Amino acid sequence: MRIALDAMGGDFAPGPIIAGALQAVQSDTELSVVLVGDKDQIDHHIQGQPHSDRIKVFHCTQAIGMEESPVDGLRKKPDNSISRCWQLLCQKEVDGIVSAGNTGAMVAGGMFTRRFLKNVKRPGIAAVMPTKKGFCVLIDVGANTQPKAEHLYQYGVMGSLFARRILGHENPKIGLMNVGSEEAKGNSLAKETLALFNSSPSKSSFIGNIEGRDIHQGVAEVVVCDGFVGNVVLKVCEGLYQYLMEVTTQEILGCLNQEKDLAKNALKQLASKYDYSEFGGAPLLGIDGVCIICHGSSKDRAIKNALLLAAKYARLKLNDLIVSELELAPSLAVNL
Amino acid sequence: MRIALDAMGGDFAPGPIIAGALQAVQSDTELSVVLVGDKDQIDHHIQGQPHSDRIKVFHCTQAIGMEESPVDGLRKKPDNSISRCWQLLCQKEVDGIVSAGNTGAMVAGGMFTRRFLKNVKRPGIAAVMPTKKGFCVLIDVGANTQPKAEHLYQYGVMGSLFARRILGHENPKIGLMNVGSEEAKGNSLAKETLALFNSSPSKSSFIGNIEGRDIHQGVAEVVVCDGFVGNVVLKVCEGLYQYLMEVTTQEILGCLNQEKDLAKNALKQLASKYDYSEFGGAPLLGIDGVCIICHGSSKDRAIKNALLLAAKYARLKLNDLIVSELELAPSLAVNL
Repeated sequence: MRIALDAMGGDFAPGPIIAGALQAVQSDTELSVVLVGDKDQIDHHIQGQPHSDRIKVFHCTQAIGMEESPVDGLRKKPDNSISRCWQLLCQKEVDGIVSAGNTGAMVAGGMFTRRFLKNVKRPGIAAVMPTKKGFCVLIDVGANTQPKAEHLYQYGVMGSLFARRILGHENPKIGLMNVGSEEAKGNSLAKETLALFNSSPSKSSFIGNIEGRDIHQGVAEVVVCDGFVGNVVLKVCEGLYQYLMEVTTQEILGCLNQEKDLAKNALKQLASKYDYSEFGGAPLLGIDGVCIICHGSSKDRAIKNALLLAAKYARLKLNDLIVSELELAPSLAVNL
Repeated sequence: MRIALDAMGGDFAPGPIIAGALQAVQSDTELSVVLVGDKDQIDHHIQGQPHSDRIKVFHCTQAIGMEESPVDGLRKKPDNSISRCWQLLCQKEVDGIVSAGNTGAMVAGGMFTRRFLKNVKRPGIAAVMPTKKGFCVLIDVGANTQPKAEHLYQYGVMGSLFARRILGHENPKIGLMNVGSEEAKGNSLAKETLALFNSSPSKSSFIGNIEGRDIHQGVAEVVVCDGFVGNVVLKVCEGLYQYLMEVTTQEILGCLNQEKDLAKNALKQLASKYDYSEFGGAPLLGIDGVCIICHGSSKDRAIKNALLLAAKYARLKLNDLIVSELELAPSLAVNL
């Protein structure tokens, strides 16, 4: 299994990114990683490290900044590390790609290649979120901010396979993000999408509309929403989580005396349960190949996990399952 | 100041709702409350209570259930408490109305009356949310799930006056909820709305696009978004808050011994800081009159605060300020 890793992408690149690659090849003996980036900056991080024989470098001279306009970056920097990752994937030099760099550029890079799986209209980003009942998939979280109902339907199918094969949910329930549970609720996109699911082969696993507060209750293992809503939801959760942990830490530690250290440990435990780096990244589902998009603030642990996730995804041949499942809906596929 | 209160609305109606009214008239000596609902169920709660001379009952025989279809409820139950509240407002019998009942029916009731302030195209619900830097207003959270850019612009103007006069922010900054900060980000609604703000008299207080994680950082005092997104965000925050508080309480209390009670108190303190009942309800801005929509699970404290908020809103003549401010944008007003 060969995965290309954007060594220049992320707030802390390249040091912790490369460290994550070294940890991943150590943990998965069948994995080799192609570090894509500036050879000079990369080489000294890997020289003499254990298992570095399964690390290769693909040199490129440019990198797109985290805040740079994705389209500008891709156009004006032809030798950037994200485009080179996509190039390696398209040429089948690697099975998958991983980047903690500019998310917009990663998605736009994928859109430019147009290497979508058969019948897939638009890829979507699947974020894994913790709930009371384990992990759920929120799809799409920003690849497609103006989707059609058919796109959301496909996100449900793809997200469901991801939830089953990767997260281990035997019969994942699909919920449609809406403003209420009644059938007549929501905007026209939500109403059309509801009708589409109800007349599809996925009807039996579709539980209809769900509300914002249902996500963390674990009501559905797959939450389908348009990329605008999903992106806002994901970032609101990040922000609220951070805010609440800060005030909680302050209030709790401020009131304790002897048992302050016990509470500190409990809070650390808590953070590790909610930590996005457990999953290490969000797959862009619908691409012919594996593409994992990591948080900009990813460090070694997140990158390691993202690489292992990419390898698992490729080994399970999840994309073949997606293609088969979408073919089960021939009437829909024709209409899309 | 006379405020009508839907005595039949909410998960705990009518007992705690009426208790909230009694507390409110005790706290505000200029306030009188009209309890709208079944006289038989109401009377024994108020008999002999202090200040009940400033509590009147407006009898009606029906109530719309919390889960009932709003449109069906309003049509099939002509003598329901929500419609009666709106009727009292339209006939200028009261200065404002408050309900913890079926939110959809409250909003639909307002839409049916068409009593909007001059130049207002669509009313929007403004939810007050805690942030690192005090409270902010999120508008709209569900009155208008398929808005136009002009509606969002008006939400910014109305939300800004609310933030200034009610929340006490001297120069509230307005942010547009989007998937990234760059100008080119988002769906067509977000792009149009950005352009509208940038060419409006509100330009100086408009800080452009903000992201989900900015809300709780307190980046803006007014966060403008479409009602679909706002509703999902508000409910996601409620759900995540509840989830995190549950797991935090479990983890922290599970690890402590002697100082368990200290931690319990700190967690209670925390809950009261984040508690929506501090604000007691979300105003439906843009209505000719005052309309406060409370959470279905509101108890006495939330209802009391909502009544006091309604009275404050009416006294400050916030609606006159909204009308003046919208008239300052004549070119926009004509185009709307």
